[in-house]
Amino acid sequence: MIDKTNLAEAFSSFDETWSPRVAGDINEMQIKLAKLEGEFVWHSHSHEDELFLIIRGRLRMEFRDQQPVKLGPGEFIVVPSGVEHRPVAEISCEVVLFEPKTTLNTGNIENERTVRDLERIR
Amino acid sequence: MIDKTNLAEAFSSFDETWSPRVAGDINEMQIKLAKLEGEFVWHSHSHEDELFLIIRGRLRMEFRDQQPVKLGPGEFIVVPSGVEHRPVAEISCEVVLFEPKTTLNTGNIENERTVRDLERIR
Repeated sequence: MIDKTNLAEAFSSFDETWSPRVAGDINEMQIKLAKLEGEFVWHSHSHEDELFLIIRGRLRMEFRDQQPVKLGPGEFIVVPSGVEHRPVAEISCEVVLFEPKTTLNTGNIENERTVRDLERIR
Repeated sequence: MIDKTNLAEAFSSFDETWSPRVAGDINEMQIKLAKLEGEFVWHSHSHEDELFLIIRGRLRMEFRDQQPVKLGPGEFIVVPSGVEHRPVAEISCEVVLFEPKTTLNTGNIENERTVRDLERIR
């Protein structure tokens, strides 16, 4: 049975920040939902491009080699593989991520914020 | 230079229905924006899963083997590869698609609604 996902309901099903939930599989990619608050760690993904679509809040995406990009609801950015970035939630965010299944949240960094075996929505 | 895309601005940049525009690349997948009006053709994609995220309007996704799924803004559905489906816009829709670059809009069907060499946003 193929069913839909309502983003508002799905976001209301968890509170944990910086811990993406898997909401669906599209071939070798996944749609993930994440709540972001404050700043994350600088990291990059060797092989994975990563799309951030803002649903609520405000996100500042920082880069080493260019000015930060500020995103609000209804805006998205694709961070290419290999590009070091740091997401900073200026206002607590609800974000849709679209990225390969192999993507680790902290990329090339492993620390206490690394999350493996992501939980699934529902 | 990595920049963001504002969905409202991007949707306002074209009028054509059933003719997805490419708005970004994420590894072997693409984010596409489509305006839908009325009903499309029954089709399936042999190898490609396809995500539909509704931004505006109302979409009814019809299937051969189950009841249709009705989607409104902020709701998404993943149609697995091989599953015959027919999108019907009950109210004119703006839809975000996430799917492999190889996805042809009419899947296994080729007719006057088939679109090749999709235009890109901006």
